[in-house]
Amino acid sequence: MTKPEDPTRVLIFDTTLRDGEQSPGISLNTQEKLEIAQQLARLGVDIIEAGFPITSPGDFEAVQTISRTVEGPVIAGLARTHVADIDAAWNAVKDATRPRIHTFISTSDIHIQYQLQTTRDDVKGQARAAVAHAKEYVDDVEFSPMDATRADIEFTAEVCQIAIDEGATTINIPDTVGYTMPHEYTACLERLYELVPDLRDIVLSVHCHDDLGLAVANSFAGLLAGARQVECAINGIGERAGNASLEEIVMLLHTRSADVGLRSGVVTREIARTSRMVSRLTGYPVQPNKAVVGRNAFAHESGIHQDGVLKERTTYEIMDATTVGLEANSIVLGKHSGRHALQQALADLGFELTGQGLNTAFRRFKEIADKKKHVTAMDLEALVTDELREEIAAYQLEWFDVEASTRRPPHATVGIRTPDGDEVTGSFTGDGPVDAIFRAINAATGSDARLREFRVDAVTGGQDALGETSVVLEVGGVSGSGQGVSTDILEAAARAYVRALSNALRRRGIGDGSGAPDGGAFMAEAEEATAEAASRQPVRTP
Amino acid sequence: MTKPEDPTRVLIFDTTLRDGEQSPGISLNTQEKLEIAQQLARLGVDIIEAGFPITSPGDFEAVQTISRTVEGPVIAGLARTHVADIDAAWNAVKDATRPRIHTFISTSDIHIQYQLQTTRDDVKGQARAAVAHAKEYVDDVEFSPMDATRADIEFTAEVCQIAIDEGATTINIPDTVGYTMPHEYTACLERLYELVPDLRDIVLSVHCHDDLGLAVANSFAGLLAGARQVECAINGIGERAGNASLEEIVMLLHTRSADVGLRSGVVTREIARTSRMVSRLTGYPVQPNKAVVGRNAFAHESGIHQDGVLKERTTYEIMDATTVGLEANSIVLGKHSGRHALQQALADLGFELTGQGLNTAFRRFKEIADKKKHVTAMDLEALVTDELREEIAAYQLEWFDVEASTRRPPHATVGIRTPDGDEVTGSFTGDGPVDAIFRAINAATGSDARLREFRVDAVTGGQDALGETSVVLEVGGVSGSGQGVSTDILEAAARAYVRALSNALRRRGIGDGSGAPDGGAFMAEAEEATAEAASRQPVRTP
Repeated sequence: MTKPEDPTRVLIFDTTLRDGEQSPGISLNTQEKLEIAQQLARLGVDIIEAGFPITSPGDFEAVQTISRTVEGPVIAGLARTHVADIDAAWNAVKDATRPRIHTFISTSDIHIQYQLQTTRDDVKGQARAAVAHAKEYVDDVEFSPMDATRADIEFTAEVCQIAIDEGATTINIPDTVGYTMPHEYTACLERLYELVPDLRDIVLSVHCHDDLGLAVANSFAGLLAGARQVECAINGIGERAGNASLEEIVMLLHTRSADVGLRSGVVTREIARTSRMVSRLTGYPVQPNKAVVGRNAFAHESGIHQDGVLKERTTYEIMDATTVGLEANSIVLGKHSGRHALQQALADLGFELTGQGLNTAFRRFKEIADKKKHVTAMDLEALVTDELREEIAAYQLEWFDVEASTRRPPHATVGIRTPDGDEVTGSFTGDGPVDAIFRAINAATGSDARLREFRVDAVTGGQDALGETSVVLEVGGVSGSGQGVSTDILEAAARAYVRALSNALRRRGIGDGSGAPDGGAFMAEAEEATAEAASRQPVRTP
Repeated sequence: MTKPEDPTRVLIFDTTLRDGEQSPGISLNTQEKLEIAQQLARLGVDIIEAGFPITSPGDFEAVQTISRTVEGPVIAGLARTHVADIDAAWNAVKDATRPRIHTFISTSDIHIQYQLQTTRDDVKGQARAAVAHAKEYVDDVEFSPMDATRADIEFTAEVCQIAIDEGATTINIPDTVGYTMPHEYTACLERLYELVPDLRDIVLSVHCHDDLGLAVANSFAGLLAGARQVECAINGIGERAGNASLEEIVMLLHTRSADVGLRSGVVTREIARTSRMVSRLTGYPVQPNKAVVGRNAFAHESGIHQDGVLKERTTYEIMDATTVGLEANSIVLGKHSGRHALQQALADLGFELTGQGLNTAFRRFKEIADKKKHVTAMDLEALVTDELREEIAAYQLEWFDVEASTRRPPHATVGIRTPDGDEVTGSFTGDGPVDAIFRAINAATGSDARLREFRVDAVTGGQDALGETSVVLEVGGVSGSGQGVSTDILEAAARAYVRALSNALRRRGIGDGSGAPDGGAFMAEAEEATAEAASRQPVRTP
């Protein structure tokens, strides 16, 4: 990707599916990653970092599927400096209209000494070889000197110069551990421009972590210093305290454009929906006081009528909720709405459903509409997302009965449809009704899954709200996550558990080599490389 | 409060109970506010802004109770420039060892014109009169020119000079709408120092909102520019996107102290516990990727073993989890632990329980320990907090029975103990088991409460986790929130609903004038002033 002609244009590099997906407890399957990538394309991001293909066959498959399907953004795959990493990244992204390889190696002495256990000279050699190898495949190559903010800046500059000499078109300066401060990061980038004048001819990028609450401010300082790509993630998810929040960076540039003079290409009206989708699929809640996308971020959303805002909106609001798409919760459908109305409403939300998919969605819609007077756009999003997950579930919840009381232990019985189509049943008396259901599902499926996390949220407020549950469980050392939606919290919990179990078993299957995607020979090679790499050094990232 | 001798000392002004409590859906009662204030004192904050006494008798009572009980920090009460506001603030804080009155008025033309509907001259007059009146009561007076970052800086400077001339000991520059940027805020404060040299003799304070994700960075820029008080809130709660996060500011100063040369007096090891308590009592979740206090903020908490961290901790960690008190989840008690062990463990957590309180806690502990192999410090915190709430509940859940199934609508029956000691029962067939329980409680108590929000979290992970639920409901125009803890999600939900209902009814009672705290004549006056003020202009704050 060449540097944009327009000096005010900031490229948005979304790493929700790579750095974001590295967060503990998140385990998206290919279908879910594809769904997020398609929404990121609607959102108008410039680059999607779709994954880290060498790390697992599942990651490879997801990057490949996204590369083959999603139109619009550049699709990037991450790679260490190893040949096998770069080969895997290329094989995963090569079918994209605009593929990118993103390779990285640490330049800080603490990483070189303790993590890589090598020398500065070796790092220079690895960086040179990696960029050169990537350039054999594709023109669009990004290079990151990991932990740059804690590195000797002269050495980092040398390595960046090498990467540029070999043809890197983007140089990204990561604050890997979230340590830097705005004035310090500004000074760092200004010094790099002095030491490496060639940086002015390519795209300089920033990648900041939020450990001290400064990810957005540091990224913004980088843009003011001349960077024109910002690496960020929806809802600020990512390693530890996460990455800079895409929505905060974008709305900062948008709201203060008159003073700052920079702009992104993001369709801001898609922000709220993207945030909800990522929260739902990752199981990571967005706190109510989160900037831009928290449910209280816009005061008039909260039901507190403010005299000031009524007199003049700008007295207390610097952004309009409609700008980020927050009006989407207006009522759209009722119990008498028909199939065509549903199809139209879904199309407005970006979901093109026909045939069997529409039939299934309509059946679920009717079930919900029977119980809930008004079905909102947010409900529909939750339902359709729920339906998408249904297709890939190996086990299916058929029915359950639960008796719960303060006066005796709760008892649950469940019926589960197996992948072979048989119905199996199981019962359990547990500590609570949810516990009883989960253990009854274990009994029915003969699994020894253990619950790691369990969360319930109302999708929309009010007495007849849909409940949305998230489950993370572990079975045989493999974790899986699942979500469920229903007006019945126990049913939502049971659905989520069955899906999490299916996902974990499916991941274990892929790990065993069964269920692997096409490109068998390459995959076998990639798996060997992964195993070898894992034994030699851990897979760590900017 | 005079300016500290030590130029490196930053005063931490906590507004969790004032700006934080203004967040939609949060409705803490006096007991809960006191509990948080006591924890803030353990945390070592310098100033607690305990509330906005004129706004309601409940707020007045809470500020007064905290002033009379909590030792250590300065206790501040907020007031507009009106005489009645300042009188109410003084009456609420006067019993504190070190009381402060904090008064404010907008200096931005947009607020003066649309909200206050007055003139700049009138604003100057009001500011002068307010500070002068407050000084008649107490030496420690803080003044804030609201919306200062969008105001004409020369005019703001004039108003600040007036406040200083009248004796204000702290001047706070609020970024009320979260609009400013670090370099802009720096320039604003530097210009104020030029225009008002007297600012160097008092404490300059910063108060930043997070609408664009810059609250911490802006506050930090203010400190670098010379401010020595920072207004912030636990978990960053507050109006809209909230205030600067106390924990992020404190850990930024702590982690980068060698480079920044500033320090707070906060006992960092109390941070995690304070965060959990505020999240639990407000019902506001902390997202997993929240800096410092999110459950993923420290990688080794997440269960992902990082080779780099194992080789050398500092390769990927800039803070140690024990510094913020995150080791507290080690196992402390089991089912065979006795009353003395429980009392000791609670004392270690800062809860001094004896007599009946200890008996009740021990009974609940035994119930939980029967179901859960290991009881952790976090479980104990949840339980004790639960017990504290029990004391003020007007209704009590006695028992319930629920039948839920995918094959017929769920049915619930509940028994509730009324404030008079009678047991009433109610039944309902609902959309889901939780819905059925909530409506059965309505039927039993004869209330028409409507659910506004419902949330469930596991207090600790794993199959036998305690479930913690939060309910916000509305009855007759008054909202109330409640929490419940149990290994049974339905029981936790029922407890939370009953408490929320009790709190809402209690608040409605206070609003009616019944149940008002002592100082009846003053309270009547304050209520009149509130009603009068409400009809004239809304109560809005920095």
